[in-house]
Amino acid sequence: MRQSLTFIPTMREVPQTANTKSCQMLLRAGYIRQHANGTYTYLPLAKRVLHKIEQIVREELEERQAIELELPSIQSIDLWKQSGRLQFFNKEWIYLKDRNQHELVMGPSIELITSIVRDEIKTYKKLPLTLFQIQRRFCDEKEYRHDLFQAREFLMKDAYSFHENEESLNGSFEHMISAYERIFSRLGLNVHIVKADSGAFGDQSFEFVILNNNGQEMIAFSNQSHYVANAQIAEVAIEYEQPNEELKPIEKVATPNVQTIHELCDFLQVESTKCIKSLVLNVDGEIIVALVRGDHQLNMIKIMKLLNASNVQFASEEEIEKTLGCSTGSIGPIKLPLDIKVVADYGIKSIVNGVSGANENGYHYINVNPNRDFAINLYGDIRYIEEGDPSPDGKGIIRLEKGIGIGRVTKLNTLYAEKMKAYVTNQEGKKIPMHLASYELDLTRLFGILAEQYYDEKGFTWPKHLAPYDLHLMAVNVADEAQRNLADQLYNILTTYRYDVLYDDRDDRAGIKFADSDLIGLPIRVTIGNKAMEGIVEVKIRKTGETFECAKEELIDRLNEFYRTQ
Amino acid sequence: MRQSLTFIPTMREVPQTANTKSCQMLLRAGYIRQHANGTYTYLPLAKRVLHKIEQIVREELEERQAIELELPSIQSIDLWKQSGRLQFFNKEWIYLKDRNQHELVMGPSIELITSIVRDEIKTYKKLPLTLFQIQRRFCDEKEYRHDLFQAREFLMKDAYSFHENEESLNGSFEHMISAYERIFSRLGLNVHIVKADSGAFGDQSFEFVILNNNGQEMIAFSNQSHYVANAQIAEVAIEYEQPNEELKPIEKVATPNVQTIHELCDFLQVESTKCIKSLVLNVDGEIIVALVRGDHQLNMIKIMKLLNASNVQFASEEEIEKTLGCSTGSIGPIKLPLDIKVVADYGIKSIVNGVSGANENGYHYINVNPNRDFAINLYGDIRYIEEGDPSPDGKGIIRLEKGIGIGRVTKLNTLYAEKMKAYVTNQEGKKIPMHLASYELDLTRLFGILAEQYYDEKGFTWPKHLAPYDLHLMAVNVADEAQRNLADQLYNILTTYRYDVLYDDRDDRAGIKFADSDLIGLPIRVTIGNKAMEGIVEVKIRKTGETFECAKEELIDRLNEFYRTQ
Repeated sequence: MRQSLTFIPTMREVPQTANTKSCQMLLRAGYIRQHANGTYTYLPLAKRVLHKIEQIVREELEERQAIELELPSIQSIDLWKQSGRLQFFNKEWIYLKDRNQHELVMGPSIELITSIVRDEIKTYKKLPLTLFQIQRRFCDEKEYRHDLFQAREFLMKDAYSFHENEESLNGSFEHMISAYERIFSRLGLNVHIVKADSGAFGDQSFEFVILNNNGQEMIAFSNQSHYVANAQIAEVAIEYEQPNEELKPIEKVATPNVQTIHELCDFLQVESTKCIKSLVLNVDGEIIVALVRGDHQLNMIKIMKLLNASNVQFASEEEIEKTLGCSTGSIGPIKLPLDIKVVADYGIKSIVNGVSGANENGYHYINVNPNRDFAINLYGDIRYIEEGDPSPDGKGIIRLEKGIGIGRVTKLNTLYAEKMKAYVTNQEGKKIPMHLASYELDLTRLFGILAEQYYDEKGFTWPKHLAPYDLHLMAVNVADEAQRNLADQLYNILTTYRYDVLYDDRDDRAGIKFADSDLIGLPIRVTIGNKAMEGIVEVKIRKTGETFECAKEELIDRLNEFYRTQ
Repeated sequence: MRQSLTFIPTMREVPQTANTKSCQMLLRAGYIRQHANGTYTYLPLAKRVLHKIEQIVREELEERQAIELELPSIQSIDLWKQSGRLQFFNKEWIYLKDRNQHELVMGPSIELITSIVRDEIKTYKKLPLTLFQIQRRFCDEKEYRHDLFQAREFLMKDAYSFHENEESLNGSFEHMISAYERIFSRLGLNVHIVKADSGAFGDQSFEFVILNNNGQEMIAFSNQSHYVANAQIAEVAIEYEQPNEELKPIEKVATPNVQTIHELCDFLQVESTKCIKSLVLNVDGEIIVALVRGDHQLNMIKIMKLLNASNVQFASEEEIEKTLGCSTGSIGPIKLPLDIKVVADYGIKSIVNGVSGANENGYHYINVNPNRDFAINLYGDIRYIEEGDPSPDGKGIIRLEKGIGIGRVTKLNTLYAEKMKAYVTNQEGKKIPMHLASYELDLTRLFGILAEQYYDEKGFTWPKHLAPYDLHLMAVNVADEAQRNLADQLYNILTTYRYDVLYDDRDDRAGIKFADSDLIGLPIRVTIGNKAMEGIVEVKIRKTGETFECAKEELIDRLNEFYRTQ
């Protein structure tokens, strides 16, 4: 491709609109542009990289008998009523009404694909079956993050497998995880497979996470074993013991202007481990109080699982005022209305003579003792794991790191099939619900992660199998006939040898052309300069910066050698 | 691909939900499924055909220096305010609000691409530039037609070219038309290039139309020249003459229960050519009356162009009652309120002693004479061309045929660039607006049209370059070891020779397998049956039905020969 004919709008300045270094570089090097509504255009260079990523994903899936199809993006909401997932409707999915006021949704496709397979497959003989698509997905985030890790439109590979029993499902599940591993290895990525929340309908879920400070996921690792899980679900495995301390009489104290645990500890000169943090929650419409220790964080996903709830939110100021008669800063478990259930984290068991809110603005209790001073309806593991906690597998202690989730595989078992009546007859002629699993991979985040991995201060350093072109051919001065002729000649030869060449034939200053070439970041630059008359060109390896001169007759051999070892 | 592993749900019955024969066949042969909300799933076979169509389109565009990129589907409505196209907002485009109440639209991309090029290209030296994408588009039709010719989600190729002047634009425009011609010829389609309405912002527009009774377009052809145009815009080139007839005095007559022109002609025993049809329109908010002869049909697009209006609709019953004091059946041009403009088709000039409504329910006037009995503010060509009209180029007469529009190219000239401030400096250093053209091609309709073209009563008859696989290999009875072994062996050999093989390895009745094979419709079927032990297979050419036996050793040669001549 002649560079004069394509569209690679590089920038000299560092753009301020991007959140991550890689996103800045993608803007500078003319790969992407961002729009006011938080969406991105993938310019010609990015489109070529995306295409290569897509091909690698497709190859590995097809290698494992997954079959490609294409589902509509817009679904009737009726399907979601069948599955019962409507009650978990996520505001991040796009909901719309058509002009005839039919309700539509642009969201995950499990219902849709299940309905198709249900209508067509009636016997176990046609199973297992794995179907996938690579398609644009839409979401409606609360805020734009100005990077590719949370794009409003993104390219998603989603696959679904259908089985007659758990054994078959487990086989495909392992098979698909191996496809993911192979994809990541071909892309040169170091990816962690992490136990994750399986959602309302899932049975077991793994997330593929790349450690990165721009990530929104918090991942818990053991320092002595292979244990790794999303901090959202990592169990806290501690047997709390009560300190051997004499129980003192409870006492109400004034705590004017104290709002946070931090202020409370300062004011009363106590450790946060002595404080009882009380949080009022709306759990499927019922108001409850959850207690965690002052140094711990409540985990809503754990609450949801513990109480088998579909929807857990913090209660609103109004709900709190109405049920407890005080504001958030002063809540406590003592003398609550009798119908309000109290759920406590196991950590509360370690508290003797603690501190809690008094359900009265400006007051707290000291020397509070659980069970003596208030009742607890249920104990459970409802807090986030923290650095220094023991690893749930009993080996070592936990450290936390930020990561970006790029995919997820989930065993859905028979829940969807039961709700959507997706039955097949088994070998004994009996009707049984199909077993399902789903497999997602976010190709836009993958692209963002790869951009993060392959750049230096001058621009990108793509490996050959991801670079938008194989090499950059450049005539330093196209006004020089010898240079132009040699460049034209080499462009033809290289193209004949099936090299995918970006040929900088632009009539521009050498400095601009070199800087652009570094930004674009193809693995090799072949420069035709002053020695064109002698038939000598310069070859530069982008990643190492290594350069050497080379006679034009030797060029193909040298390039073949370089790419063979890539 | 082993057929037991893929997903080709054929149907024995003819489905009643499809509108067209081709769509029925696509359902029966397991290519597509339709959903309740009027969208389609492209099952694995259709996905493969679509992919081949996409590749042909991509190759021909890239051959002509068009560069691929990927724009977001969801746009901020602000861009549409810049271009001024918001006032022409079409209900067929999808409008939505995000959770922060920002207005978004999923529609054509001219504004978006113009904004990108505007922000990056400042000099004529970087022009011309042609950019394209192949992307899913969404629309919100009033009704679903239950076929692929009006799908709610469809695959669109849209391209845009940017130029410093008209000459450059004209060059690219011709170039792109030649790309379309080449695409259609490769697909084996007979496509008409038809003059079409260029919309509010276009200057000159051509539509690519395939004649087909399922079409919604009406195309006007001359029987003696190459003249062809969409009936929406084909000029009526008739010099009407007034018959030499004595003017009679106007007279009001009772016409009880007469509502339509047809009823009026019956009741008064007059020709429809004598009747004045009066239609009340709302033109950009102003009420006007348009007159056409009783045998003619009013053309809203012509009205829009004639009056240079952005929005023309029939006036509502309420508007008619309010301004004229009568209902639609009785409207006439006589004694209208003075501020109501009257626009007449040239055909009205031919009327002497005609008939019109009396603006009074149940009454008409007879012996009405234009100019004597009422004033006409403006004459124009505001009716549809009809069969038998003279061809606008003066050669022959017009015949009409139905067609399906599959693409459109439009010269937009500088209008968008001016509104959106997309300027470049020209050779003299002067700032000038860029010239634009747009080029659309609907790949979903193309797929529908191709399905329409390549089927017979048993199923599809795909040519090799469109077929989902090159050939169908079938073991009639997989329980027979000789058959299964030979089929497995040939599957390996054919795959090694790079044939894309669908291998029917299913343990099913022979009748089902043969019927499925005809439905799927690959160019060749290789059947392994009773003569497997002797190493003899049967080859069937799907399209002609011709069959011959062939020793397994000769198979590759025979196939190579067949495909070479395809």
